[in-house]
Amino acid sequence: MDLRAGRFDGQMSDDAAKFSSSIEFDKRIFDADIKVNRAHTTMLTEEGIIPKEAGEKILAALDKLEDEGIDALNLDPSFEDIHMALEDYITNLIGPEAGFMHTAKSRNDQVCTDIRLTLKDEIENTISNIKDFITTIVNMAKENLDTLFIAYTHLQHAQPNTFAHHLMAYANELRRDCERFMDTYKRVDMSPLGSAALATTGFPINRKRTAQLLGFSEVMDNSIDGVSSRDFIAESVFDYAMLSTTLGKIADEIVIWSSYEFRMVECSNAYSSTSSIMPQKKNPDIAELARGKSTIAYGELMTIMSILKGIPHSYNRDLQEITPHLWSAVDNTNDILQIVHGMLATLTINKQRTAELAGANFATATELADVMVREKNMPFRTAHNIVGRVVSDAIEQNLKATDLDDEFINKAAIEVTGKPVNLGDELVKQALDPALNVKARTVQGGPAPSAVKDAIKNMENFLS
Amino acid sequence: MDLRAGRFDGQMSDDAAKFSSSIEFDKRIFDADIKVNRAHTTMLTEEGIIPKEAGEKILAALDKLEDEGIDALNLDPSFEDIHMALEDYITNLIGPEAGFMHTAKSRNDQVCTDIRLTLKDEIENTISNIKDFITTIVNMAKENLDTLFIAYTHLQHAQPNTFAHHLMAYANELRRDCERFMDTYKRVDMSPLGSAALATTGFPINRKRTAQLLGFSEVMDNSIDGVSSRDFIAESVFDYAMLSTTLGKIADEIVIWSSYEFRMVECSNAYSSTSSIMPQKKNPDIAELARGKSTIAYGELMTIMSILKGIPHSYNRDLQEITPHLWSAVDNTNDILQIVHGMLATLTINKQRTAELAGANFATATELADVMVREKNMPFRTAHNIVGRVVSDAIEQNLKATDLDDEFINKAAIEVTGKPVNLGDELVKQALDPALNVKARTVQGGPAPSAVKDAIKNMENFLS
Amino acid sequence: MDLRAGRFDGQMSDDAAKFSSSIEFDKRIFDADIKVNRAHTTMLTEEGIIPKEAGEKILAALDKLEDEGIDALNLDPSFEDIHMALEDYITNLIGPEAGFMHTAKSRNDQVCTDIRLTLKDEIENTISNIKDFITTIVNMAKENLDTLFIAYTHLQHAQPNTFAHHLMAYANELRRDCERFMDTYKRVDMSPLGSAALATTGFPINRKRTAQLLGFSEVMDNSIDGVSSRDFIAESVFDYAMLSTTLGKIADEIVIWSSYEFRMVECSNAYSSTSSIMPQKKNPDIAELARGKSTIAYGELMTIMSILKGIPHSYNRDLQEITPHLWSAVDNTNDILQIVHGMLATLTINKQRTAELAGANFATATELADVMVREKNMPFRTAHNIVGRVVSDAIEQNLKATDLDDEFINKAAIEVTGKPVNLGDELVKQALDPALNVKARTVQGGPAPSAVKDAIKNMENFLS
Amino acid sequence: MDLRAGRFDGQMSDDAAKFSSSIEFDKRIFDADIKVNRAHTTMLTEEGIIPKEAGEKILAALDKLEDEGIDALNLDPSFEDIHMALEDYITNLIGPEAGFMHTAKSRNDQVCTDIRLTLKDEIENTISNIKDFITTIVNMAKENLDTLFIAYTHLQHAQPNTFAHHLMAYANELRRDCERFMDTYKRVDMSPLGSAALATTGFPINRKRTAQLLGFSEVMDNSIDGVSSRDFIAESVFDYAMLSTTLGKIADEIVIWSSYEFRMVECSNAYSSTSSIMPQKKNPDIAELARGKSTIAYGELMTIMSILKGIPHSYNRDLQEITPHLWSAVDNTNDILQIVHGMLATLTINKQRTAELAGANFATATELADVMVREKNMPFRTAHNIVGRVVSDAIEQNLKATDLDDEFINKAAIEVTGKPVNLGDELVKQALDPALNVKARTVQGGPAPSAVKDAIKNMENFLS
Repeated sequence: MDLRAGRFDGQMSDDAAKFSSSIEFDKRIFDADIKVNRAHTTMLTEEGIIPKEAGEKILAALDKLEDEGIDALNLDPSFEDIHMALEDYITNLIGPEAGFMHTAKSRNDQVCTDIRLTLKDEIENTISNIKDFITTIVNMAKENLDTLFIAYTHLQHAQPNTFAHHLMAYANELRRDCERFMDTYKRVDMSPLGSAALATTGFPINRKRTAQLLGFSEVMDNSIDGVSSRDFIAESVFDYAMLSTTLGKIADEIVIWSSYEFRMVECSNAYSSTSSIMPQKKNPDIAELARGKSTIAYGELMTIMSILKGIPHSYNRDLQEITPHLWSAVDNTNDILQIVHGMLATLTINKQRTAELAGANFATATELADVMVREKNMPFRTAHNIVGRVVSDAIEQNLKATDLDDEFINKAAIEVTGKPVNLGDELVKQALDPALNVKARTVQGGPAPSAVKDAIKNMENFLS
Repeated sequence: MDLRAGRFDGQMSDDAAKFSSSIEFDKRIFDADIKVNRAHTTMLTEEGIIPKEAGEKILAALDKLEDEGIDALNLDPSFEDIHMALEDYITNLIGPEAGFMHTAKSRNDQVCTDIRLTLKDEIENTISNIKDFITTIVNMAKENLDTLFIAYTHLQHAQPNTFAHHLMAYANELRRDCERFMDTYKRVDMSPLGSAALATTGFPINRKRTAQLLGFSEVMDNSIDGVSSRDFIAESVFDYAMLSTTLGKIADEIVIWSSYEFRMVECSNAYSSTSSIMPQKKNPDIAELARGKSTIAYGELMTIMSILKGIPHSYNRDLQEITPHLWSAVDNTNDILQIVHGMLATLTINKQRTAELAGANFATATELADVMVREKNMPFRTAHNIVGRVVSDAIEQNLKATDLDDEFINKAAIEVTGKPVNLGDELVKQALDPALNVKARTVQGGPAPSAVKDAIKNMENFLS
Repeated sequence: MDLRAGRFDGQMSDDAAKFSSSIEFDKRIFDADIKVNRAHTTMLTEEGIIPKEAGEKILAALDKLEDEGIDALNLDPSFEDIHMALEDYITNLIGPEAGFMHTAKSRNDQVCTDIRLTLKDEIENTISNIKDFITTIVNMAKENLDTLFIAYTHLQHAQPNTFAHHLMAYANELRRDCERFMDTYKRVDMSPLGSAALATTGFPINRKRTAQLLGFSEVMDNSIDGVSSRDFIAESVFDYAMLSTTLGKIADEIVIWSSYEFRMVECSNAYSSTSSIMPQKKNPDIAELARGKSTIAYGELMTIMSILKGIPHSYNRDLQEITPHLWSAVDNTNDILQIVHGMLATLTINKQRTAELAGANFATATELADVMVREKNMPFRTAHNIVGRVVSDAIEQNLKATDLDDEFINKAAIEVTGKPVNLGDELVKQALDPALNVKARTVQGGPAPSAVKDAIKNMENFLS
Repeated sequence: MDLRAGRFDGQMSDDAAKFSSSIEFDKRIFDADIKVNRAHTTMLTEEGIIPKEAGEKILAALDKLEDEGIDALNLDPSFEDIHMALEDYITNLIGPEAGFMHTAKSRNDQVCTDIRLTLKDEIENTISNIKDFITTIVNMAKENLDTLFIAYTHLQHAQPNTFAHHLMAYANELRRDCERFMDTYKRVDMSPLGSAALATTGFPINRKRTAQLLGFSEVMDNSIDGVSSRDFIAESVFDYAMLSTTLGKIADEIVIWSSYEFRMVECSNAYSSTSSIMPQKKNPDIAELARGKSTIAYGELMTIMSILKGIPHSYNRDLQEITPHLWSAVDNTNDILQIVHGMLATLTINKQRTAELAGANFATATELADVMVREKNMPFRTAHNIVGRVVSDAIEQNLKATDLDDEFINKAAIEVTGKPVNLGDELVKQALDPALNVKARTVQGGPAPSAVKDAIKNMENFLS
């Protein structure tokens, strides 16, 4: 089947044919292409646009091809794309009546219908995988409600925390990543089929019917928009880029936490490697690679947006180059998701170390200041300044938070304000204890086990 | 008011202070910062966490500051940020009781609450501006239902079209841009306030109350996530980037269409300029700049995603650098939106020229092939090949579409298939007439005036 | 050969092994890996660091592998990378003595030495291909020294020009693209070999000798830098991105010029395609794809820079993910280069049309103003204003540049300045003739055939 | 002075004028614009193209403007750009003869000449600042030749090192950043002046003379290329992006190293800050901001490349939008450079801690394996496996590297190979001592003080 037969004399050069063939990436839309041809042919027959008999032959041939699979196609790059390869297959099977299949349809609307159908499946799959990951996280959180952890800001010890609370931060981020896909899905789930080359057709086709047969929720309301728009791809790739970012952040924390200096966690051997020259090493390679690969979707997004930039309506061949970058973002992010899921699920927490760090470096100082405000009605800034001095003095004298008492604090208070605070040793001790500290933070979204349990309940509602 | 007083001896170097000050960009969140301090102080007073009297003094001082405006603040870059400048103002006014305002609140949660509040306004504003633009487009479409236009693929004449139909492609793209903002809005409209530094607080604060006072729909369910997450910014900037892309595409078309060769449209003088050396020029400078500037949001997005890449939880100072790039994307895209709106609204269409082009270059050939399929039950591919030969022969003989008749077509048909088609001159004439061509395409989403009217109705439903 | 044998009990999970394997992309560095092992083993033997006999066995095994080619390797993804697969091959052949090959060498220094060696070849190849393209362009320029062309600014007619002059703009841009590669080459052409894992080695290796054996001009002077640095990759990818930009620009011009409206050029059939639904189309698909693909290197660059962002020294596994994006940029840009070269070389110029356009739209107006300055000693701005009025009046009266005479100009001059200019009809005619116009611009870099000939001479000097 | 006077009736709308005005960013090229006008006028006078007297008046007016500075200009955005504002100034001063200044010159060539002149200064300045930073680093290295440090791969302890050696990695990277600027400089240092609008001019201007007057090394050889090309900007911005990357890496290390867990370094108070809620904190804010800001140039580069993508020759107004992104990259990177320089120069190294870490975690294991190879002629892989087992056993038994002896190693060797190694306690002790370890690595580029001294010498040669 040679499209050019009617119009051109010369053949496309081999280089140009190879350069412009999308066959390699079209394999991805093979299933969708059969579905679209089937729905279109069904509708054409139903509406009496093509002879019933021709329609039936085409449908039978499509079934046969579906059974045989993509290997039945001649995927020579001299075919521009899979649509031509499929048509070639049908033509070989049933003769020129195959040509009826292309009535009132163009590769312009067909290719973007194919991509939308395939991408819908991918997004559904990704949503489901994110939810699985959240489920794992929620289960880990349930088991770590009391596991002391240190929360960092600026990679400095900030305040005591629990591992469960940290995990639930992941869960909430992933939930938004998931919701983003759900929103994008609405804009993918629209049928451009029937836009034909760009101006629909004079045939009385039924676009609602093909949309229904293919499971689309909506029919696109402008045929130029139908064949030109790739914003649904850019948006999907952005969603994958954001999911990548969340996963890359988790991976980065695992790299840091499994350093000798932090040694808060240990990666399972299944996610580590050693060195060809340094036999003592246990490297978090998989986490590093996940962090590195989390940028792939950024680049793909940049390529896609640059392609879209400044090209006029409607179909331009530039658009063909967008699709491979979509699949690259989809596949790479899915891989990272699976790997980070597995790696986190098998991570060993060194609870002794995390408890030690939670109490190590004055992370409870905020609570001490809060106690002054609460018990002594002191403005927060004054309390902050006193505690700042307390910490500074303690560091100078090489004391830990647990070494401090009422007297020590009064001394600092007098230096700063001229007056003692007189909290009493008991209050001081309580304020500086990391576990009590965490338990006190029962506010919505806080680290107290009760608050984390509530957050878990909310998350489980989302999941179900 | 010196935060460092308690803890540090040395001062930050001037360079470092200037490097790290966000004062310049914080001006943008001045109004929001007052609102947040007011809501927080109100709640603290209501819940009995701070003395009622202190609360009232703070609220009065905030009112006074709101009246006086940002110029009342000391915006010296030695203040790290606007929160400190504001606190300094309140402290100067009411003394150390100002410190109560900071009870159970940190700059970490405050700044992202401020940004979210401000961004909500911006998004609402942008949504409204997009809708205004769509309204303009719809009105232009109504006046151009019959204005013949040529639709391009590959920048080659594809099929006859109307200007209204082309305009409605813009409207549908802009509608999705708009819906994207609506979806993103849900994720901006969540209150992180009460997350404090990252672990909430031991004070019995009421996060739902502050969220309600500030008009947030939801309270964020994890305090680490509350202070760390900037995905709402990345997502907003992406939405601005996509809107930019749509606008840049329109601008690009105006540049091409107003060339001497196309001369389909003329920009209003209000959106053109001339040359310092070539007095004959009338340049579509504004369209070009709109196209150029449409990439700014791409770069800002890239910067933001690269900042987010690979930094651990929770607050890191890197995050500060994200906000200026948000505002840059917001402001530049808003400017482009306003300008492209104005430029399109004042564009003059050269209807004679667009009609001439619609019939110039065999753009009706598809319809001719369709007629063969419809009337002669011919497979589309066969018809396509015959018409390909027709066009090729006509070009060779320097004939136009309107010069062709039944005989000419039969000759080509015989060359290709060995048989004539015998459509008759009347059918041939009708098939090749661009205006009839357009009128025949009444399918949903098609260019026929009836179909465009339906699409307009749908769009008006969306707008209202 | 299991690296993990000594240190680990558990195996890496299959998913993780697949995720982290670089085997697929390592195929690209197979030849280089043999060369590096050979050079390193030779040096180790020469310096007496390993037993001579073992060295000879290793070298013989490497020769055998080179003969057999990469298919002789077991490329199971359970091998982390090609270095392990190669070592496995040698070990199977000669037994544990193969282990001597890894003395004083790590995969860290080996992989970046491999990449540098391979990239040097690629850059040399690209430089040579750019020069070939410039040669083609220069030859086309020689044949088009007098081919009138219109030069655009803002896609509006600016001034008459020749096709040769336009072509030489391409040549000069490509020359800088080429020189950029030459500069980058210096930074690729440095040997990191001997850096070992990151701290060199206690063995008395001779780094200058391996550098010499491998053809490197320089030895890297710091071993941490040696294994960590990938700036040579980012820089190379940037060079490919800039070359892509130049090629994309050329492609964009071909798309515009081959539109029905411009019809200044026609693409060879070998670089065009038709439509599945619109038989009249001849689409510049290859040019569009070249334009679209010109953005791939942008995305790859963004991915690479994002990977590099914020990771500490020295080797981190993230770096592995950089290399595939390098080869993607290299291969895609090479393809575009070849295609755009072929497409430009076979382009047909419609000289009648370009001459027509050169005189169509007052592009000679600047020269008319210049003549007033030259002949009448008038300030340029005054002349500019008069000519602006001339053009404006002519357009109003539907006159072409060739219709204008002394009288017409005097009328406009009087309107603007109150005085006539009195150039005389002869001077007016000369000024407004596009061919004379071009011939007058003999300044260096100008379009006059004499000036273009000089530019060609300079370019030929560069090429040789 | 109204450029539009001759050609247009209507005025540009205020919005459009503001949207398109480059006045704000043109301030940056004010000095250059005077220089270019001066050089051009001088040449015009010398060549007798404009009246000598007019030339002298213009030059005097330019001198006066230079004295008065930019505030003397009317920078109302109704002027499109600084060229018009400057011309307005001269015209007000000397009357219509000011118009002679614009003979044979266009804003198209003028603006890119201005940018090139200004950028040359910026690059020279940046090169000098990089060299200053390298000088600081070299001096720090000289003082830390024996300061033990631990080198990381995968953020895991790899091998003992010195701080000097680590610093010299910075120096070598910065040197390449510097050399990249030197190479780019050649492509900035070319004069487009005389290209006029795009086709040079019929006036017999002397482009070599203006180039010489302005200090350019070369005259651009094609006038279309002269006004169209912005690759010199993209390339410069890329160089700033790479410098940013190097600086961001250093900043990232400082963030990690100053964590409680690593506590290898302490930032000077001048580069730290504390928390508004956590008084114990000493945060490396400046380092974090430097890391965050290191991505700005990435985004600017992306914007610039996207602007360049797919626009045809020659001057298009899109190009105007490129320049602000250049200056943003220049200024931000310069700020980061200054800040990271200051921060590193005032960093306190905790030498006790770095020495402790250097010996803490079997980082000397590689040397132990090397000793087996050297002393016992064992293949490296075998030695690697034995030492892997040694480390694994030691970790299990909670032993440190310094606890190991000959007997322990023999036990592991027998497990792995069936045979003891018999190194003797002395060799074992030596191999496992981090300081001796470092001293042994005297290879070029290695960490031994002797090798680092050589590297310092090479660097000092580069600096001078």
